Amino acid sequence: MNTLQEKQKTLKALWEPRSIAVVGASRRPETVGYAVLSNLVNGGFKGSIFPVNPKADTIAGLKCYPALENVPGPVDLAVIIVPAGGVADVLRTCAVKGAGAAVVISAGFREVGPEGARLEKEILALARQAGLALLGPNCLGHINTDPEVMLNASFSRTMPRAGNIAFVSQSGALCAAILDYAKGKNIGFSKFVSLGNKADIHELDMLRYLKDDPETDVILMYLEDLVNGRAFIEMAREITGEMAPSKPILVIKSGRTPQGAQAASSHTGSLMGSDEVYDAIFSQAGVLRVDSVEEMFHFAVGFANQPVPRGKSVAIVTNAGGPGIMATDACVRYGLEMAKFSSVTTAKLRAALPATASVANPIDVIGDARHGRYEAALAAAFEDPAVDSVLVILTPQAMTDIEEIARVIVEADQKYDKPVFAAFMGIVDVSAGARILEEHHVPLYTFPEEAARTLGAMARYKDWTDRPRTEVKNFPADKEKTREILGSALQSRRYFLTPDQSMEVFKAYGFLVLPFGLAGSEAEAAAHALRIGYPVALKIVSPEIIHKFDVGGVSLGIADEEALRAAYRKMMRSIAGQSGHYRIDGIFVQAMAARGWEVILGMKRDPHFGPILMFGLGGIYVEALKDVTFRLAPVREFGARRMIESIKAYALLKGVRGQKPSDITAILEALERLSQLACDFPAISEIDINPLMVYGESQGAALADARIILNPTEER
Amino acid sequence: MNTLQEKQKTLKALWEPRSIAVVGASRRPETVGYAVLSNLVNGGFKGSIFPVNPKADTIAGLKCYPALENVPGPVDLAVIIVPAGGVADVLRTCAVKGAGAAVVISAGFREVGPEGARLEKEILALARQAGLALLGPNCLGHINTDPEVMLNASFSRTMPRAGNIAFVSQSGALCAAILDYAKGKNIGFSKFVSLGNKADIHELDMLRYLKDDPETDVILMYLEDLVNGRAFIEMAREITGEMAPSKPILVIKSGRTPQGAQAASSHTGSLMGSDEVYDAIFSQAGVLRVDSVEEMFHFAVGFANQPVPRGKSVAIVTNAGGPGIMATDACVRYGLEMAKFSSVTTAKLRAALPATASVANPIDVIGDARHGRYEAALAAAFEDPAVDSVLVILTPQAMTDIEEIARVIVEADQKYDKPVFAAFMGIVDVSAGARILEEHHVPLYTFPEEAARTLGAMARYKDWTDRPRTEVKNFPADKEKTREILGSALQSRRYFLTPDQSMEVFKAYGFLVLPFGLAGSEAEAAAHALRIGYPVALKIVSPEIIHKFDVGGVSLGIADEEALRAAYRKMMRSIAGQSGHYRIDGIFVQAMAARGWEVILGMKRDPHFGPILMFGLGGIYVEALKDVTFRLAPVREFGARRMIESIKAYALLKGVRGQKPSDITAILEALERLSQLACDFPAISEIDINPLMVYGESQGAALADARIILNPTEER
Repeated sequence: MNTLQEKQKTLKALWEPRSIAVVGASRRPETVGYAVLSNLVNGGFKGSIFPVNPKADTIAGLKCYPALENVPGPVDLAVIIVPAGGVADVLRTCAVKGAGAAVVISAGFREVGPEGARLEKEILALARQAGLALLGPNCLGHINTDPEVMLNASFSRTMPRAGNIAFVSQSGALCAAILDYAKGKNIGFSKFVSLGNKADIHELDMLRYLKDDPETDVILMYLEDLVNGRAFIEMAREITGEMAPSKPILVIKSGRTPQGAQAASSHTGSLMGSDEVYDAIFSQAGVLRVDSVEEMFHFAVGFANQPVPRGKSVAIVTNAGGPGIMATDACVRYGLEMAKFSSVTTAKLRAALPATASVANPIDVIGDARHGRYEAALAAAFEDPAVDSVLVILTPQAMTDIEEIARVIVEADQKYDKPVFAAFMGIVDVSAGARILEEHHVPLYTFPEEAARTLGAMARYKDWTDRPRTEVKNFPADKEKTREILGSALQSRRYFLTPDQSMEVFKAYGFLVLPFGLAGSEAEAAAHALRIGYPVALKIVSPEIIHKFDVGGVSLGIADEEALRAAYRKMMRSIAGQSGHYRIDGIFVQAMAARGWEVILGMKRDPHFGPILMFGLGGIYVEALKDVTFRLAPVREFGARRMIESIKAYALLKGVRGQKPSDITAILEALERLSQLACDFPAISEIDINPLMVYGESQGAALADARIILNPTEER
Repeated sequence: MNTLQEKQKTLKALWEPRSIAVVGASRRPETVGYAVLSNLVNGGFKGSIFPVNPKADTIAGLKCYPALENVPGPVDLAVIIVPAGGVADVLRTCAVKGAGAAVVISAGFREVGPEGARLEKEILALARQAGLALLGPNCLGHINTDPEVMLNASFSRTMPRAGNIAFVSQSGALCAAILDYAKGKNIGFSKFVSLGNKADIHELDMLRYLKDDPETDVILMYLEDLVNGRAFIEMAREITGEMAPSKPILVIKSGRTPQGAQAASSHTGSLMGSDEVYDAIFSQAGVLRVDSVEEMFHFAVGFANQPVPRGKSVAIVTNAGGPGIMATDACVRYGLEMAKFSSVTTAKLRAALPATASVANPIDVIGDARHGRYEAALAAAFEDPAVDSVLVILTPQAMTDIEEIARVIVEADQKYDKPVFAAFMGIVDVSAGARILEEHHVPLYTFPEEAARTLGAMARYKDWTDRPRTEVKNFPADKEKTREILGSALQSRRYFLTPDQSMEVFKAYGFLVLPFGLAGSEAEAAAHALRIGYPVALKIVSPEIIHKFDVGGVSLGIADEEALRAAYRKMMRSIAGQSGHYRIDGIFVQAMAARGWEVILGMKRDPHFGPILMFGLGGIYVEALKDVTFRLAPVREFGARRMIESIKAYALLKGVRGQKPSDITAILEALERLSQLACDFPAISEIDINPLMVYGESQGAALADARIILNPTEER
């Protein structure tokens, strides 16, 4: 199987088989072969099940076959639990039987070393050859709760209830934990799959399938890596934003721990850890990245059961003042706003509630409230046009009729189309009420903070789906000239472009480059400076000198010709005084950039994900404050704008305390041009523009210093 | 009752009464009067209970008295549930009966308006007069689980089990939620108290009592305000750090939402919200501030059941790779380190575990592990001297013998004195194992992130208790001179000190002040500048001009006499050209500070908490990046150092990328001198030193600009 279309076709055999062979089925409880077979049988699979085991006649009441070839009739799906060494043979038979998919639950492949990796390669080749979709190896299996299918081809302890959430996991053990957690929380799943080693089927295949799966409204993923970052972005963007209704995707990407910074020749490179790249990917894909399983399910329960709130304005109804304040704190912390009630709402509340109640937001129905007061407060809140969502808090006080209150919340949820969330604070006394809410799709939390955090995530998702759709711009650029410069550098094995070469490239891509010239003598330098206008900077140009500062090869802020001549001579003396002989190609003369806000723009090409752009506060601050942000190239205009707006120092660029705003548009364009340059020329491995000097509105931004580094392994 | 000593004495009557009168007891279920009485009776109170109600003969099998005066014999504690208007009369009888304490559960006081506030004042006066400790009004009551006392004088639904955690709440409704939550989690309490309106007894009284309470090891508080920030710091520091064993204090302070910035005349003022002040207080007090009830109890269960780890190095034992990575991420995120095992440990693990197991940290005992592998891995981890604590993760897989694994964890906990934490991922299948851990004091979490976060909090607490003990320094200072300057300014109602006055004050307190002079004429200004040395700055000195910049009253970086004369004349013309006539006291001439790192030091006096110090990155960045930190004055040397180290820009001051480190000691001293000045002179309401120019190591720091503002209401 070579094309994605073919693979997709066969995922139908994986998810909706009419016949399954369990190769390696066992009668011994506590074996995986037994667990898988009994899960299939007890899960109520709607098709035929064929146990395969040479040593048994029947298992779990089903006739058992000595080998796969003995199974009568077609087999859509083979679930394979034989030792790793025997899997290839089974797959060969699968090919003969015309199976569409195989789940290799067996371990003993890539995860155990080179010999296992070889076996994995072999089974992958067999699967490809047979046009057969292969799940695993080394996985827990998969579950489809669709009542037409009822497939539990896993060795889980539990069959989950049906629901509209799909879960895709790169960890089988996590699946076990999540099924148990979901059972305790009454959370149901549409599809549940353990990817194992991802030899063939990986997260992109699953996303493509779940995109069109009518049973799935929310997609959860646990990932340890991505097979293709750019493709993930494209697929996820389609699912989260370009179809109606869109499906939110929540991802745990583990391995956040900063890796030791890799050797890198640029600021951009040294600031960029693998985790920042993943953050960039998820942010560009509209994916909500979460830090823990708990957070993932808090969010999932909200998305799966309630509409996304139309705005950020929330009303709180509570029978307890303290928790009302805590909920308010949490709402504000998670980016929501407290709704301001209309006078109509306030009047309704005043009429329905006792004098000591609070009719402002949070609405405090007071500790002795029974369900009638909750009902009145909920109606008033829902009916206020300024309210986008409602958060109901209950503490189990002496007079609190918990189940009745749960029922009025359910009724309000059914009557109004705004989302409602409940925090029933406690465990034991609130449990019966909690069950009522869970059964009627009201997202329930133990504490208001969790509800507020979920609402905040849903509001962020709303911002994403509502974002303006922009395109990747294509600026006119002199590609031919650029190709020439890079080509000649590569040909002469000069991977650090000289300042004049770099400036020519930036010029070719339409950046605002300050006038410059390359001088072969003191007199020539003076002539260049006269043409350019003082003050100027001098930089030595030598293919053999990378750290120009360290050898006295840089002189800045030269005010006049006298100073220029002195600086020129001093530089030549300093270079001559170095141990070792350097080839000098000349002296680079360039106008000094006027002072402005210093920002840094950068690009580093990742072997896995392609060109990654960086933007941040420049100068010395970039190292210390790490106020930087990343995105995969190409960026659209909206993405570039979000990069600029997301750094903390954005306030400085916008203008604080009466300072004039900077030319944000110029930065935006520079980022987009950088993106285009990076995409056009894979030979460029790193770019640093540090600093880009940004001036006032409509006054542009100038490259004060910049370097381009090529990839030594790149051919011309 | 006027002194704290007396109040403390009577808290014994509150917590350990031998006889209790319930005034307002009722036989009608669903009334508070019934709930309190039946809680006392069913809770197993060890002393005598006297119901008081004119309309009943017996309640709950106890003889009922028509009025408090009819109760035979002494009454230690009166629990009062009569309507607000009747409480004063009951308290009068309490005084006659010699009661030591009263709990006023009744509402209808300050929380309902002015009339209620009057009643509250009245009952407070009566309690003070009678030397009687008063809890409430408007509270849920209190609970003491000490088996010698067994007091539940509250209308809670639940009597908690006994434990070593005390809970003090400024919200009664939250108490109800927490009791239900704790019941579900098997968490026990030593003391449990609802403070209500805090008319008399407040958080400080409770801290003082709990400090010496042998049943209490951990103190939890929910607070909406503090009666006295400075006193809170002193008391909490004693409890968390100056006694052995110390008792950790965990606090939720609600109302984090930033208040609209109050009108303030200084940077310090405008950057300081009330929440930052509370953060400062808790940080100085060694109190762990938490954001939610859930976080509070996650931490509390750790502190209450395990020793504080002696260091940050953690070992993880897991039967699931994915959750092991997630736990590692979380440990690093919360400030812990992954232990590096010795070769002995690795050899032990290799011998005990299958070949596919991971013997590095996290130790992966693999999905099919039963308790034997956990036992071996735990022993190896605990015995490694590099390990300070152990985190055990379990996912309920097909082969996992959950209860047996729980038992080997309990055994390891009992055998070794390092702390152990468990994350049993799931709800239903893991529940029996979870119960075993809870019963044997192994802190149990559903997800490893929560365990890691708790361990991180315990490690921070360890840092606090181990911190170097420093003193508040007392620098020689010319207090007399300062008093004179401030006095004369106040006398002439000039609340913004002029630059020369400010500089004189800073000089008197030993700050490095650049040479300056006050000139009455152009010639005098030139003479000053000659003495001082160029470049200099000129500033207009006028009691009537506050915003000098706006009227052209400031000129900086004047290079020579010619420029000085020109600037002087221009300034005079500009002032003369203003509408309105200003009294000019002269021109302030001062040396320009050389460039250095700009930091800001500030002080604002809070009406409630006294002088609050601020430190942060200076210049334009202070507004945009808000990289600032606060502390109440006086600060000790350690506290001042922590202020400096806690801002993000500290990396800049330490020296990044080959930059030389700055003179941190000079900043430290400036902060301590500022603290001393603020404490010495309550007449000063705000101070801004912005910027303080910080130079290289041992090169000091100079006040480049600074202002002092006095309090108009301050008498001489």
